[in-house]
Amino acid sequence: MQFDRKILVETIKRLLRREATPHLQKIVNKAHGADLSVVFHSLSLSHQKKLFSMIEDIEQKGILFSELDEDIFLDLVEDMNIDEMVEILEAMPTDDIADLIGKMPEAMSSAILERMQKEGSEEVEGLLRYEDDTAGGIMIPDFIALKEDTTAKEAIESLQKEYQDVEMPFYLYVVDEYGKLVGVSSLRQLVVVPPETPLKNFMTTDVISVHTYMDQEEVAKIVARYDILAVPVVDETNRLVGIVTVDDVIDIFRREATEDILKMAGAGEEFVETKSILKSTRIRLPWLFASCIGGIIAFYIIERFEGSLNRFIYLAAFIPVIMGMGGNIGTQSSTIVVRGLATGRLHLRDFGSVVIKELAIGFILGLVYGMLIGFVAQMQYSSKMLALSVGLAVISSMSIAALIGSLMPMIFARINIDPAVATGPFVTTAIDIISIFFYFQIATILLGI
Amino acid sequence: MQFDRKILVETIKRLLRREATPHLQKIVNKAHGADLSVVFHSLSLSHQKKLFSMIEDIEQKGILFSELDEDIFLDLVEDMNIDEMVEILEAMPTDDIADLIGKMPEAMSSAILERMQKEGSEEVEGLLRYEDDTAGGIMIPDFIALKEDTTAKEAIESLQKEYQDVEMPFYLYVVDEYGKLVGVSSLRQLVVVPPETPLKNFMTTDVISVHTYMDQEEVAKIVARYDILAVPVVDETNRLVGIVTVDDVIDIFRREATEDILKMAGAGEEFVETKSILKSTRIRLPWLFASCIGGIIAFYIIERFEGSLNRFIYLAAFIPVIMGMGGNIGTQSSTIVVRGLATGRLHLRDFGSVVIKELAIGFILGLVYGMLIGFVAQMQYSSKMLALSVGLAVISSMSIAALIGSLMPMIFARINIDPAVATGPFVTTAIDIISIFFYFQIATILLGI
Repeated sequence: MQFDRKILVETIKRLLRREATPHLQKIVNKAHGADLSVVFHSLSLSHQKKLFSMIEDIEQKGILFSELDEDIFLDLVEDMNIDEMVEILEAMPTDDIADLIGKMPEAMSSAILERMQKEGSEEVEGLLRYEDDTAGGIMIPDFIALKEDTTAKEAIESLQKEYQDVEMPFYLYVVDEYGKLVGVSSLRQLVVVPPETPLKNFMTTDVISVHTYMDQEEVAKIVARYDILAVPVVDETNRLVGIVTVDDVIDIFRREATEDILKMAGAGEEFVETKSILKSTRIRLPWLFASCIGGIIAFYIIERFEGSLNRFIYLAAFIPVIMGMGGNIGTQSSTIVVRGLATGRLHLRDFGSVVIKELAIGFILGLVYGMLIGFVAQMQYSSKMLALSVGLAVISSMSIAALIGSLMPMIFARINIDPAVATGPFVTTAIDIISIFFYFQIATILLGI
Repeated sequence: MQFDRKILVETIKRLLRREATPHLQKIVNKAHGADLSVVFHSLSLSHQKKLFSMIEDIEQKGILFSELDEDIFLDLVEDMNIDEMVEILEAMPTDDIADLIGKMPEAMSSAILERMQKEGSEEVEGLLRYEDDTAGGIMIPDFIALKEDTTAKEAIESLQKEYQDVEMPFYLYVVDEYGKLVGVSSLRQLVVVPPETPLKNFMTTDVISVHTYMDQEEVAKIVARYDILAVPVVDETNRLVGIVTVDDVIDIFRREATEDILKMAGAGEEFVETKSILKSTRIRLPWLFASCIGGIIAFYIIERFEGSLNRFIYLAAFIPVIMGMGGNIGTQSSTIVVRGLATGRLHLRDFGSVVIKELAIGFILGLVYGMLIGFVAQMQYSSKMLALSVGLAVISSMSIAALIGSLMPMIFARINIDPAVATGPFVTTAIDIISIFFYFQIATILLGI
């Protein structure tokens, strides 16, 4: 049942305060695991445990497990009975089990794998073998694989018997005697052809598939590009070993977008707001160090020009506007390039044209704002040379910022470093330093200091 | 067939140069529309037209239409024969047609709607009635709706006959005599129950549905939350009017993430890199204006403290580091809050606790970097009071930045303005101004100027 989440949280909190157990039981067993996980988010551990014990359906418990944040999940299961854990896990899809087991402390995970039914634990261990963020790591081993001589009728019968537990039975894969992928048919085709037709007569042989080692982001892009509900995963010998389903693809896109956004702001990779103040502080501290070092370098640059500053004290007053304009256009450029690369709107092969275009935009915008700010300087101090210095500094700062902002992520991508880390503190700091240097250098020359 | 995109682009370009038409025809008709759209991206208009004329399959042409960027699509169809357009459009899913028609100039779209078969054009006009970014605007009207007395066998037969064109036939919706949604069954359930079982015996009555006016982002979140492949859309009277499918949900998430990222950097809303230099410049100009005004305000603040600066010229040298530290932690805070709100990790009801937490993090990090930068000042000028001024300025700048960075997006969200616009130029500029003011005020007091 679908609830308004806010109302659900409030209601459950109120019932917990009133200790209205029968009411709670009714709600908890009607709500979807995904909604319950939000409720757990705002409860104390003892209330979480109480609520959890009220859930009757074992699959509901499993959905909740996979929806909970890592911290909350680990607290909740810390002193749970291993047998109960095993029972819940065995009712879950294999990829979700592997995910949870990967999060547990070593002692707990090995105790659980030992006690799980042999077949299930082998599947889970199989998945744990692959890197977390590859097709192998996110695939599920529950798929339908049939031989090409199977008839439509036999295929439907096998759906009713051996493949009852398959999570997403929308594609039927066709394999040869070695388990190699040779074709695919949809459940829909199965019901529209005459019952005696063998698969090979109506299957599509042009199957889109991915390799176990392919990066999950690439896998997600393929599923999105071809609008399919699942993509088969094959090993080096083209044997079918699993499928990646569209629901996992959605999660990948959302997670990658969050990661990129946080990296771009220099705020770590994972979402930290739910973590403690000290943990958050620790994650954010190093990123700010780049900015601190940059600021100290800028300090030494200004010091070098102390003579100029001493004679024209008002040079200092333009430092913020020159830094701000450069920093902001640099952020625009790097953001456009990073997101363009991530979504496939920009390509590495466009390197030259992208950077030149950004430089041109930086120069034009620099011209506009350089004149504006130069005009303010002229009004204030009636010095043509000062106005010219400030104007030229804005133009050079904004051009350089657009250049660095587009160049850095492109270079990072080319040497296979995530371009998202090339934005944020690093770019702004580099731009600050260069802008300040150009500003004082131009002013020193033009004002004849 | 699946191609490496880079190789595909290179190959087609080479064949076009060589005018190797038979080769080109073979490749163009084997490649997927999604891959071809990438090729079109890097071709001249005349080459695009040549390639397009080689496509034989009308559905292939349709897929290409919906994959092309708006600019390229409009150039390509500008002088295309209306009858050919209608023929291609009629082979496409209704939601994609509505999308394309929405992009065309008025004259073209009305000519096309007039000439489309009555049934199709009514469906498209129906979709055009709803707001673009609501469930009604993105739904497709192709779904399977059966009465609850229909047996599994009859349902399968209707799949083979009347519902042959349904794009994603994974759920069968059950409606009452007024067309109101009362249940849902999956294609899978249909083949595993005995053929004579009526739908009402095995359908799920607990259907997750959305209203036509629901915002597309909310719709996407619901599909993701419940891991479903499609969600039914109902009108005010609970009548089933369409479905939103998971492939559109993926597009929504990706587009929304891009929009958020660009807004956060103050680089417009839509991806502009593929647009001309002048168009890009025009989009980015106004966002930089905030930063320019902020810089000019900072200029006037520093001017007010000219007396202090005149006596302690080296105060100017610390302006960049104080601005930089504040700006960067402010970006971290606002990014975490904006993304947290977008993904549902943070809620408006946590207002107080989020802001207090950010303030605490800002203060702790301010303490760390304030001491570090104060130490540099002490080393350089051996003035305890200067070191103290600089250190306190860093602490206040970072605390205020974290406060504003988290407060602004929360306030924006509360008054229903997209929090993403609350970051970028606005936040950094506000922080710059306040930081500079506090710095000079603290220094003026402590240094007894």
